[in-house]
Amino acid sequence: MNSQPAVQDTYPPDFAECYGCGRNNKHGMQIKTYLVADETVTDHEPEPFHKAAGQFAYGGIVASLIDCHSTGSAAIFWMRERGQSIGVEPTPRFVTARLEVDYVAPTPLAPLHLVGTPLEIGERKVVVATELSAGGVVTARGQAVLVKIRT
Amino acid sequence: MNSQPAVQDTYPPDFAECYGCGRNNKHGMQIKTYLVADETVTDHEPEPFHKAAGQFAYGGIVASLIDCHSTGSAAIFWMRERGQSIGVEPTPRFVTARLEVDYVAPTPLAPLHLVGTPLEIGERKVVVATELSAGGVVTARGQAVLVKIRT
Repeated sequence: MNSQPAVQDTYPPDFAECYGCGRNNKHGMQIKTYLVADETVTDHEPEPFHKAAGQFAYGGIVASLIDCHSTGSAAIFWMRERGQSIGVEPTPRFVTARLEVDYVAPTPLAPLHLVGTPLEIGERKVVVATELSAGGVVTARGQAVLVKIRT
Repeated sequence: MNSQPAVQDTYPPDFAECYGCGRNNKHGMQIKTYLVADETVTDHEPEPFHKAAGQFAYGGIVASLIDCHSTGSAAIFWMRERGQSIGVEPTPRFVTARLEVDYVAPTPLAPLHLVGTPLEIGERKVVVATELSAGGVVTARGQAVLVKIRT
């Protein structure tokens, strides 16, 4: 379905240990973000212990999902802007400078779906808007400012 | 040193399973927030696996710390405003409506210190500003809007 690999699977090993998105962090969430048409998509089901109260997901995990989805999306959008493909050219690594999350409804402990769109794609700065939903209902909206690490 | 218990130790059992601050979540961070003079204070050292890259803490964990520190701070400031004491009167439970984090420097995987101050204390809405520091250096600033759960 995805013509390109998950962006996190193309990060250099030094950047593959992140709790949110590192493929080499065995304790972590290991999220995977793909380019789908003009948007970025992450699907993730929180662990049962990543709860807040009752059967709701913890707000810090919702923020974490939006954070790593955004850093991955920034790399994807930056590369696409330059006609590059994930897994072909080297993937740049972005870090978060600012994160905003609006919790518009309780997020269930269930499969979650994140969709990212670019608000700004600069030389080193990318701004990503994210909608997080569960079962088609949007429960959180995020906006993140990402900065490309100098290499 | 603290004349009142940690606010999280006074949450009802139903609200004590949160990954960030639940005393009954054995997988969680179990943060503890105290009233110290006119501010709220949380001290926490992230787990080694709560990393981003290298020896830096994961931004999602920084956001999580600010989130739970803020919900706890909201309860503390709301009670203090009414002349109530943590552990004496019942603790109200606040949830996060909006979270903003500015990552001003990399946060090390080291003992972290959070200080909260109230920006607004309403009937049901409290706004808390947080500074997170490591070794005296501020690495993140947060602002959260918290809403009191109706009981």
